[in-house]
Parts: sequence; structure tokens; C-alpha cells
Amino acid sequence: MKKKTPATIYHIKDIKDPHFLHELNYEELEILAREIKDEIIKATSVNGGHLSSNLGVTELTMALHRNFDFKKDKLLFDVGHQCYAHKLLTGRDISKLRKKGGVSGFIKNNESPYDIFEAGHSSTSLSASLAYAIDRDNKKENYDVVTLIGDASIANGVSFEALNNIPHSKHKVIIVLNDNEMAISQPVGGMSNFFRLFQTSKGYAKFKKGFMRLLGFVKPLYNLASKIKNSIKRVLISTNIFDSLGFIYIGVIDGHDFEALDKAFKKAKKTEGSVIIHVRTVKGKGYPLAESDHQGDWHGVTPFDISSGKSLNDHHDEISWSRVYSNFVLDRLKNDDKFYLICPGTLVGSELCEAIKQYPNRVIDTGISEEHAFILAANLAKLNYHVCVSIYSTFMQRGFDQISHDVARIHAPITVLVDRSGLVGDDGETHQGIYDSSFLFATPNINIGMANNVNEAYQLFDKSFNNKEATFIRLPRAYIRKRDVDKNYQLKEFNIIKSGEKNVAVVGVGPLTNELLEPLISSDASLYSVIKLKPISKSLINELLAYKNIVIYTPYETSNGFALNLLQELNHSQYKGNIYIKAAPLKYISHAIVNEQLEECGLLPTQVAKFVQELKK
Amino acid sequence: MKKKTPATIYHIKDIKDPHFLHELNYEELEILAREIKDEIIKATSVNGGHLSSNLGVTELTMALHRNFDFKKDKLLFDVGHQCYAHKLLTGRDISKLRKKGGVSGFIKNNESPYDIFEAGHSSTSLSASLAYAIDRDNKKENYDVVTLIGDASIANGVSFEALNNIPHSKHKVIIVLNDNEMAISQPVGGMSNFFRLFQTSKGYAKFKKGFMRLLGFVKPLYNLASKIKNSIKRVLISTNIFDSLGFIYIGVIDGHDFEALDKAFKKAKKTEGSVIIHVRTVKGKGYPLAESDHQGDWHGVTPFDISSGKSLNDHHDEISWSRVYSNFVLDRLKNDDKFYLICPGTLVGSELCEAIKQYPNRVIDTGISEEHAFILAANLAKLNYHVCVSIYSTFMQRGFDQISHDVARIHAPITVLVDRSGLVGDDGETHQGIYDSSFLFATPNINIGMANNVNEAYQLFDKSFNNKEATFIRLPRAYIRKRDVDKNYQLKEFNIIKSGEKNVAVVGVGPLTNELLEPLISSDASLYSVIKLKPISKSLINELLAYKNIVIYTPYETSNGFALNLLQELNHSQYKGNIYIKAAPLKYISHAIVNEQLEECGLLPTQVAKFVQELKK
Repeated sequence: MKKKTPATIYHIKDIKDPHFLHELNYEELEILAREIKDEIIKATSVNGGHLSSNLGVTELTMALHRNFDFKKDKLLFDVGHQCYAHKLLTGRDISKLRKKGGVSGFIKNNESPYDIFEAGHSSTSLSASLAYAIDRDNKKENYDVVTLIGDASIANGVSFEALNNIPHSKHKVIIVLNDNEMAISQPVGGMSNFFRLFQTSKGYAKFKKGFMRLLGFVKPLYNLASKIKNSIKRVLISTNIFDSLGFIYIGVIDGHDFEALDKAFKKAKKTEGSVIIHVRTVKGKGYPLAESDHQGDWHGVTPFDISSGKSLNDHHDEISWSRVYSNFVLDRLKNDDKFYLICPGTLVGSELCEAIKQYPNRVIDTGISEEHAFILAANLAKLNYHVCVSIYSTFMQRGFDQISHDVARIHAPITVLVDRSGLVGDDGETHQGIYDSSFLFATPNINIGMANNVNEAYQLFDKSFNNKEATFIRLPRAYIRKRDVDKNYQLKEFNIIKSGEKNVAVVGVGPLTNELLEPLISSDASLYSVIKLKPISKSLINELLAYKNIVIYTPYETSNGFALNLLQELNHSQYKGNIYIKAAPLKYISHAIVNEQLEECGLLPTQVAKFVQELKK
Repeated sequence: MKKKTPATIYHIKDIKDPHFLHELNYEELEILAREIKDEIIKATSVNGGHLSSNLGVTELTMALHRNFDFKKDKLLFDVGHQCYAHKLLTGRDISKLRKKGGVSGFIKNNESPYDIFEAGHSSTSLSASLAYAIDRDNKKENYDVVTLIGDASIANGVSFEALNNIPHSKHKVIIVLNDNEMAISQPVGGMSNFFRLFQTSKGYAKFKKGFMRLLGFVKPLYNLASKIKNSIKRVLISTNIFDSLGFIYIGVIDGHDFEALDKAFKKAKKTEGSVIIHVRTVKGKGYPLAESDHQGDWHGVTPFDISSGKSLNDHHDEISWSRVYSNFVLDRLKNDDKFYLICPGTLVGSELCEAIKQYPNRVIDTGISEEHAFILAANLAKLNYHVCVSIYSTFMQRGFDQISHDVARIHAPITVLVDRSGLVGDDGETHQGIYDSSFLFATPNINIGMANNVNEAYQLFDKSFNNKEATFIRLPRAYIRKRDVDKNYQLKEFNIIKSGEKNVAVVGVGPLTNELLEPLISSDASLYSVIKLKPISKSLINELLAYKNIVIYTPYETSNGFALNLLQELNHSQYKGNIYIKAAPLKYISHAIVNEQLEECGLLPTQVAKFVQELKK
């Protein structure tokens, strides 16, 4: 791209690749940053997406592309949700962000040669960067491997394992720590304390004061030391957690200051050995409403009005399933002082901020620490607390070992709200909540349930605290009509929504089952809605044995969960009729809206109803 | 127990509880330690078990029971394999260690009120200790929560998540870090470098030298500083990795010095806030052969002759399945310079020490870091390396998220040797390798196989590097007859071991299938052995459709793996005969020898053959 005058150059749509960046001066960079931010605000206001983090790293991303050549050097984004400026700088249109046919909200290999590392779950980029560094050194090539990772992602077990291994391996990687002091919900844990210590001059002053107090009686030494304070500062800062693991530490750099970033990257390139550049950014920088948000409301947004900031996704008389359960959680926190909520980093997404605000002592946000969360929960439950873990299905995969070894094996009676079970829409492949149940069904001492309406949801949740073993309650990323909860509702293992002839029984799991009623109303099919999924209801089996055909409809999971376990029970009961399974397919499903994904899988209620009706002919 | 004269008191069998320990003087403690070590050596020489680590922590365990009252205070063992002295001091007989009816090799709630925290997988005790501390503080009670954890276990993602959360939580726990400088295979990673730095006076001298170099030109300051070196030392040592996370650090303590241990524990009890006591022990201390072992051969032992150290488990003309594959790995390392082996901490158990010794650059021991191992492997494979991960089935559970999100989703063509698949014998509940396949079968883009003999094994392994997607090869903890490998063997998806009438087809997976042949030889049943399990062979389905009865025999996994997926395919093909599943049950199976466990589950080949024959009548 040819350089023009500042006022006219930045037609973002003309950008083909980021090579022009090194020709710009600091003033021009500032102007371009503003344009990029406006484009990001516009795209997310229409499509939803990650707003704050992308505004926070705009200058940092530009500085990266200005100081490195990522046709040769390697750039890995941790998670990848902060890649919007990168997409613009590498010639992509983000106006249809996260929509079918538009660019993904994450890094995608097939979109650009600049996208080399796909992810969606946090904390995986450090391990991956080591692979690239090994490959470079094996081939005796000469380029840099750079990873951009946030402060929440780095303070995590997966990251730690890589941090522990990288310096030992002797292969150089450059880690850019984007410290925005917030993480998804709020900073938790000792590592974030460490970040706080070093990130501002105020922090350093506090540290200096502590150092002085420690030295105490050796005041003369301190006085001398203060004369050579830069030296001392270097010594002190070099004995931090990263240094003790073997990294060279560069920081703290202002992530909105192009000049400071240029200097830091130049230094990092020259350094022998792996480097951590500690960059301080402000989330939401450039959009005042997001900038002043300290709760994370602007982390992931739905479409909104740019000037007022108001959400355009107005679900009038509807309520999300997350909110249904978060209301129950709040109730329980209020009425049961033995109740604990543990949530590994997804308080905002699961609408639980009110819970931690009102009950900070009994709501534990462990940060992105699913493994720790489950072990803590299990042991609290064994000590007779009523413990609920709130987690997304896809992130729960990180806790599978703990669910077996630390929860189920010791019969810990925890309740787990498995949020975003099923197809999740615009987050795409990396976030689909369809894989957890295969493992849960194969784990002993576990109950699984899924509600179709708020009354069932309340009963499942409320009664779970009487169970002697763990209860996993799956809930979808979807909305339902607002309705008062009837707390006296009598929960059954399954409901007969529609009683028909003994020809076809449709056995559905989850709220979409309700939507089968209308298209099947005039047919002779029976419609069952199953709420208690594991153990499988014996009376359900007995009912089903009478039918010639059984259609199992489990759109929220692959067949390897409820469907195959029901098949096993029917086989065990010598059922000889026909069984048809309509479940999520065994593949990774791309971003689109949920109904488009369901349609692609043949799982829309109308599609399944059609199948049922054709079956009867 | 009443105190008698040193020479006569220590009849270990008379010990009922550890309260007598605080009455003993240091000389008496030394004598008792010797007696306990002898008992441990004796028990492991007969039953096998963890020898080195238990000898290493004998004095430390005694000191813990002497300084705390674990009827009131809480003692949590990480993993729990180092609990033999604890078992003796709390009145248990270890002569039938790990045998059916004898004590477990791990902590077991049902054995003693002193056993409060059960585990088997590493690094879970820190999270659990926080639960106990929360409970204590909620009830305003006054006791200590003490965790004993090794240097390999603490340098792990799960531990890190807890270390990051504990100081933030403000609930005091006392962490006793048993640093024996070895871990299971060898120390890996930056955290172990840190341990090395502080553990000896030599280490401290080195650190001092570094500090001096850093200060460089401010020599006068250093001279002044050296005058108040204790003070400086405290400042420096307090800025280590644990301190920066918010712990109070006490160390390094000689773990075989009762007096030093007494002092450290007294100090830790008085401290406000969570503490890490860094204790240095010598693995195998008290049994010279184990003490001089630096490879880990004496970590887990099979029965041995005490005086010579020779193993009594002489498998003459037999070879373990681990060794079968480790030979292939060595071959491949030799002949394919694009081949990498990644092993998260189980090189010894999977008989891969020779591999890392001969090819240190292409064998990566990540330590107990399953998550990191899979991401690293996936990304190396995407860079066109041939990558093999060697891991135990039970520990692979820690990598499930990575297997889906980081391996399968990106079609990374790694090969995974899933060692100890199936029932594992004396390690019991926490180590059973029967749960992995449910998840693998529910994960897209994955191949699964299991060999019945060395030729199949070779082909599965060798051809896996041509696959475009990941291949998981399951292998059992068992021995087979030594045999030369025929490298020209033609691998099929399945073999017909015995062709019979179209009445009963027995479909077996894994080496136990071979043992069905003899008891079924005179029957009219057909016997199939399936090697390629996923995707399920279409021609196998076609063959099976002809039979009236199908018996699926998968003793190495629960039914939620191959069995239910085969059932699904048969159902899909409208099969209407009878299907019987013989798979590992959905429960946690206690320690015993493998054949006893198989018998308990009705899975011995003779039991299954009997079932098949009765079916025919």
C-alpha cells in the first residue's frame, strides 16, 4: 500500500497486508489505530463479538506487525478472540464477523496465511509456540516466534506447564503478555497480584516501601541503594516469577505507546533466550463505555447501538437459560448458608456477577482453572457443603480427569451447571458443547439431567442437593419465555408430551423437544421428553418396548451420550423394533447462528418431525 | 503405646496410633525410622509397590505425626503413593500391601480415620487442602491443614492453579514440599531449576555470585550488603516463585534431620498465612541400591530379592506390551530423524528410558504435564514431524480437552500409545485404564486401534505415521510371549480367528481375545478379533449381519467405547439378532491382580466362553 497524506491514507478496505506499517510515523499510526477501532466497534455493534479486548490490543497488534514480518516470523494468538485488528491489517473484511460466510471471530488457517495457530480455548499458545521454535532451530532458520497472551490465560495450569518447559528446552520464544488487569471476570490468584505489583509506578513505589521495611535496620544501605535505584530496580524485578522460571523479563510497557512498543520488540529480538514482554493495555480503549467497564460487560457483546451502548438483542419477554439458573443460584445463596458457587472464569457469560457481588465469601471465581475448580468443589462437598460448579460444556473438557478421579470416584455430591450445552452458534468449532456427555455417561456415580422448562429446571437444581452423587445439569445457549416458577411442580424422570399410537415414539432431550409438538400434533406419534438422562429410567424403557419405531432426538450432544446408552438399554431388554438416532454429528461445526447449525445437522424440530412423518408411511 | 527402652519398644505391629512419637528422643526416632524402613523394604520386596519415595519420606512422615495431631489437624498426601510409613504409624499391617484383602498402596478413607484424602493422580492435594481450610475457618476452628507434595507433582498445571488461588483465598494451609530432586523420571522445567537453586549452600553461593554480577559496578553496595548477609539472604530468598504467588517460604530443610524438621514445623504453625516448607529428601534413603538409583528404577518395583536387588518377577520368555512398543519407538528414533517422542513423566513405566538416553534431542519428557504434551505434539505434527505421545490411559484423561480442541480439531496426525489400557491390577481404582475410549469414540477425526500380537502392533504403529489424522493405539498392562516381528505382516481391520456356524459371532478386542480360542475350539461359534476399532470396519458389520447372536467382548474398556459404537452401526444396518456386551463395568475397581479383577467383572476368557456356550443351548 502506498503511503499518502495522513488524512486520506487509511481506507481500511485497501489494506492487503501489513507491510506498509513500518513506513508510518507515530502520528500516522495513531490515526490508523483510531480507524481500526472504529471498524471494530462498527462490526461488533452489528454482529456481536469480543469488543473490549480487541480495542485494547489494537496498537499492540499494529506494533507487532510493524516490528516483525509475519510472513516469515510466526505470530500465535492465545484463544484468538483478540484478532480483529490483525484480520483488518492482513486484508480481511470484518463486516460480517462471526456470521455464516463472514470471517470467524477467531484465528482461522483457511482465512489467511497470517493465521497459523487456531484456538478458542485459552492458554494453549505457549505450548504451540515451542513447537514452532523447535522446528525453526532444527532447520537452523532465523525468525522469531511470537505469542500474544492475556493475563487471565497465562495464570492457568496449561500455560504454566508450558512456561515451566520452554526455558528448559532452550528454544527461544517471545511471549507478549497482554496485561489488561481484568481477565474475563476479574483478576484472581497470586499471579495477578504479581502483575499488579509491577505494573504501575505506584506499584513499584509500594514495592520499594516493602523492600525498605524489610531491610529496616540497614537504612544506610537503603540510602546508598536508592542512589543506584535503576540498578536495584532491575535486580528486584528480575527476581519475579517469570525470571525464576528462566525467562528474560521486559516490562512494564505501555501497550498504547507505539514508541515504547517499538523499543521493547527491538530489545526482545536481540535477546538470547526466551523473553516475556509485559505489556499493560486498557481494555475497551477508544470506546468510552467499554473503557469504563470493570465488570466485563463489554468483553463479549451482542449487537448494540454505538452511541447509547444499549443492546439491540432485546429479548423482551424472554430469559436466557443461564439467567434461569443464575436466579436459582442467587436464591440458594440467600437461603442456604452451606451453599457455595464455584465458577472458573465464566461468571459474566453465565450471568452470575450479581452472585459474586452479593455473596463474595461463598462465590469463588477460580479464574481459568477448571481442574482446580472441580477438586475444590468435590472436597467442599465431602465436607458437607452444598456446592455448585458453573461452567461451559466446552471448557468442562479441561476437568474430565477431575470429574472422574476427584469427583465421581469419591461420590462427591456436587451439582454442575453445564452451560452452553449443545450447539453454541457464532463461537464455532472450538466452543461446541456437544462432546461432554460421552464422557459423563462413561463415568460411574454420576447423574445427568436436562430440563425443558423452568419448573423442571428448578426441581432438577433444587433436588440435586439431596443426591448422594454428583448431578450434571445441562443447559443450552438459548432463550425461553419468561415464566414464574412453580416450586411445587412434581418432577418426573420423563414426561409424555403427546400420547399417540404404538407405532412411533419420539424420545426427545432438551427444550427443542417442545418444538416437535406442533408439527407432530396431527400425527399418531407419541412424544416423550426425558429429563433424567442418567441413570436411564427403567419405566421409560418399559414404555418404549411397546413401540414399533423409536426416534431418539438428542440435538444437544453427539449420539455417544444419552442416545447410545438408551440404545444399550433397549438392546438389553431385547427390543427388536426400529431405532433411529437424531443427534449432533461427530464433527466440528463452524460458526453460524444456532438454527443454521441445527439445519446443517438435520436437527431442526421441523426436519425431525418430517422424518417422523415419512417414517410412518 | 508405652515408651520402653530403645532396644525393645519398636515392635511395629504394636503401634496403634502415632501419639507416642512426641515422647521419643532423637536417638529413639532414628532407631524407629530404621525399623519402619526395613518393614517397607520387606513389604515391597514381596508385593511390589513404591519403594524409593516411601524410604525418602519416612523421617518426614514421623516428624509430621510428631508435630501435628492428625486426629484434629488434617494431613493430605499428594498422590498418596508415599504413605507406607503413615500406614505403619497409624496401626496398619502392610505385609499384604496392594494385594486383595491387604492395604491399598494409596490413601484409603475406609482403612483409617487418619486417611482423609484419597488420590492416585498427582497434584490434586493442594486444591483439596483449600477446601479443608475453608471449612475450618467457616467453623472458626483451630487446627492445621497440612499437605505433603513432591517436586514433580507441584511443578504441574493442576498444582499451579491451586498455588495461584490459595494465597488469594486467605485461608491458611501448610504445604510440605518434598523435594527429592528426581520426580518420577527426572526433573524437567523451570520450576525444578528453581528448586536446585535454593536447595544447597552451593546453590545459594551460585545465586550470590549472580547477584554480585548483576550489581556489577556497585561493588561498594555489595560489600556493605554482605555484612548484613542474613538480611539480604532473606530478602532474596523471599522473592522466589512461591513468595511472588503470596506464600511464606521456609527452607531448605533436611528431611532426614528430625531436629530441623521439628523447628520448621513449629515455625510454620505460628505463621500467619499459607506456608511452603521446602524439604530436601533423598529418595531410597536407607536402602543403598535405591539410594544410588538416578533413573527411577526403584520408584515403582515388582517383587525383588532384598540382598541382591534382583527382580523376582522373571518373565523369562515374556515381554511387556510397553516394551513391545518401546522397541518400535527406538527403531523409529534410529531410522526417522523427523520422529519425536513426547512423554509426560512416564518414561520409566513405559520402558522408554533407553529412548531418552540415546536420543535426548528428539525425546521430550514434559514432566507431569499431559495438557502441554498434547498441544506440543499436535503442533509439531502439523509442522510435518512424526510425533508419538506415550502416556497411560488413566493420565490421558488430563489431556481430553487438548485431544479434542488441539489435536483432533486441527487434524494433527499424532500417534498416541495409550499404555495401561484396561484393568491395571494393584494400583486400583485411581489407575484403571477403562474410561478413555468413551471420549475418544466421541471425538471426530480420530483413529483407534488395539493389537493382539506383535505383528499387528508393529503394523498399527508403523502405518499410523501415514494417517492424516491422529491414531490412538491402546495397549494393556500385561506380558506376551517374546516373538520376532514379521515386518511384512499384512494388517487387516479384523481377523477371523475361528470360523464357525452363523449362530454366534464373538467379536473380541485386545490380546485376551486369543484366550477365547481354546475354550471355544469345539463349539460352533465364530471368533473375530478386531484391530481397527475406529472407524468401525464396514466389512465387519457386513459379516456380522449374518449371525443370529453377537457377543461383543471388550474387557479393556467400558461398553461406552467400541461396544456401543458397534451396537450403533449394527442398529443402523437394521440388525435384528441378539447382541450381548461383555465390557468393563461402570464402576471403580479396587486393587487386586488383573485376573482377579477380570473375574470380579465376569470378563475372564473362560467366563465369557462359558457364557457363549450356554447361549447356544
